[in-house]
Amino acid sequence: MRFVLAIGTTETASIDGISAAGASPDAVAHTPAADAEITAYGRLIHAPTVPVSPTGCPTPAIVTRAVRDCTAFDLLTMDAGLESPTAAPTVTVAGTPGRDIREPEPVPAAPAAFGAARDLAGELPDAEVYIGESIPGGTTTALGVLTALGEPFEVSSSLPENPIDRKRDIVATGLDASGLDPGDAAGDPIRAARLMGDPVLAAIAGCTVGAIDSGAAVTLAGGTQMLAVAALVRHAGRSSRLTLATTPFVAADPTIDIEAATAALEVDLAITDPGFPQADHPALQRYRAGEAKEGVGMGGALHLAERAGIPMARVRDRTTTLYDRLVGSNGS
Amino acid sequence: MRFVLAIGTTETASIDGISAAGASPDAVAHTPAADAEITAYGRLIHAPTVPVSPTGCPTPAIVTRAVRDCTAFDLLTMDAGLESPTAAPTVTVAGTPGRDIREPEPVPAAPAAFGAARDLAGELPDAEVYIGESIPGGTTTALGVLTALGEPFEVSSSLPENPIDRKRDIVATGLDASGLDPGDAAGDPIRAARLMGDPVLAAIAGCTVGAIDSGAAVTLAGGTQMLAVAALVRHAGRSSRLTLATTPFVAADPTIDIEAATAALEVDLAITDPGFPQADHPALQRYRAGEAKEGVGMGGALHLAERAGIPMARVRDRTTTLYDRLVGSNGS
Repeated sequence: MRFVLAIGTTETASIDGISAAGASPDAVAHTPAADAEITAYGRLIHAPTVPVSPTGCPTPAIVTRAVRDCTAFDLLTMDAGLESPTAAPTVTVAGTPGRDIREPEPVPAAPAAFGAARDLAGELPDAEVYIGESIPGGTTTALGVLTALGEPFEVSSSLPENPIDRKRDIVATGLDASGLDPGDAAGDPIRAARLMGDPVLAAIAGCTVGAIDSGAAVTLAGGTQMLAVAALVRHAGRSSRLTLATTPFVAADPTIDIEAATAALEVDLAITDPGFPQADHPALQRYRAGEAKEGVGMGGALHLAERAGIPMARVRDRTTTLYDRLVGSNGS
Repeated sequence: MRFVLAIGTTETASIDGISAAGASPDAVAHTPAADAEITAYGRLIHAPTVPVSPTGCPTPAIVTRAVRDCTAFDLLTMDAGLESPTAAPTVTVAGTPGRDIREPEPVPAAPAAFGAARDLAGELPDAEVYIGESIPGGTTTALGVLTALGEPFEVSSSLPENPIDRKRDIVATGLDASGLDPGDAAGDPIRAARLMGDPVLAAIAGCTVGAIDSGAAVTLAGGTQMLAVAALVRHAGRSSRLTLATTPFVAADPTIDIEAATAALEVDLAITDPGFPQADHPALQRYRAGEAKEGVGMGGALHLAERAGIPMARVRDRTTTLYDRLVGSNGS
């Protein structure tokens, strides 16, 4: 088993009010680099701060790393368009950040990113691959891709109040700029990612296709961004079995019926409850309040922990220990 | 514990007759990328061939990966001047290959590589760090650095017949071109690496200094190239405890008295015998014949296996299994 984490950026994240992946717009640019360092090392190396939402919810990377501390899963981090460098070891599959999806062609690198990630995943020795992401603004680009493909699903949010109307407006502007009507990119996932997506979506779709084609079992570790990946993979003509592993926070999101959406795409759904409601730690309370919800493969990591027989109490303990070390001391 | 593998290239390797790290000069350029893929994945991904010496000795990366299969050690691969890209995840500490040491300034990037590796290693969470290398031509640049520092040690070779006179001539030409007499760079390790070394030596010296300064225990995993690193670290004014973990093949090399050399630098010496003499597999026979000897941290990996209580028979079995899979099928 190998856990692939694709990290990147899109200028879409700098549109006011759509992302909670950082305390400030300036911090958002460093979020994927910081998430990768936390997952790789359990601490920050060069990234300036631990990603925390404006309301104080810590990055789900802490949960994913907590699981990694318990299970020692193998990690492969893909740089799919980072804006600031990371000290985590990476394989580069896309060299440039995505631009704002309100531009005509926000991701010219989409075909190359898809191809590079597909070729890499196709050569991996693993019978099983989990894939997660970190890209601020990613649910908006996910909505862009789903709409371009003609898939009727809404997307979740890392904010307590999902600015879904704002996202719909942005997507409508983007479709206009790209000369697309909803559904115009059906059957052409690379076009959907190139005109309405981000480099991480392109890379993960390619990675999934490559892994599937080499006979590996793929689990998409995440929420509605991974739902968009599942849609891209189905539109690439791959009908193989696929699992989406997410959290109860995504399942409880009223914006999206994740059960119906995965069923429509013929994707198996795994929801793993970390049991945070029983906890009284401030970090866990934020998750319980429906913030962050997903990201950095949290749902997939929890699924892995469950399969490995790790008691959730151990994952929770490890999460709070890491949180106290990372946020308490600001990671240094 | 973390195992750091620094990979890179120097044009010094293309001087006729000094390196066995590849079946042909063309293949040599891909050797570090291939070694990194074998260590990271247990197979090749994009690198074209498994590195094999002109006489058929397989890369020591196979032994290091065999140990990793048994112990699952954490791996951090540093790109310190690769010529061809690798599909192994890396952190880049030097962006350009080293030039021929017969030029006046073969490694302009030495100060930057030293600094980047020092800063990264200084932030690692690990109490213990092992450091290995893969750079064809590296024993010649090691001799260059040792001579520039004024250290009287000779270097080993991956060839059965060490072309030590050839290396001395090359080093003499390089010193001339750089305007140095032997010992002129004493106390200035970055100058030694910049004028007579390679980017991997600069990076590993920086990595060792950073790890030492942060309080970590460092084991240099390798032979005479790592001896040159130990000298660089001593000339950087660090007198902390340091271990060199190598193979019996280096210890048996008549060109260098590794015991006396490590003692002179106040470095602990650990020699771990993988027991290859008892084996009858063609790959193990080549090692037994004194080819390859070291590289890709083989001696350190064997040391790790011993400390972890892994029976050497298991390491040997795993080595031959990997060899048959990688070389038998050419890695695909």
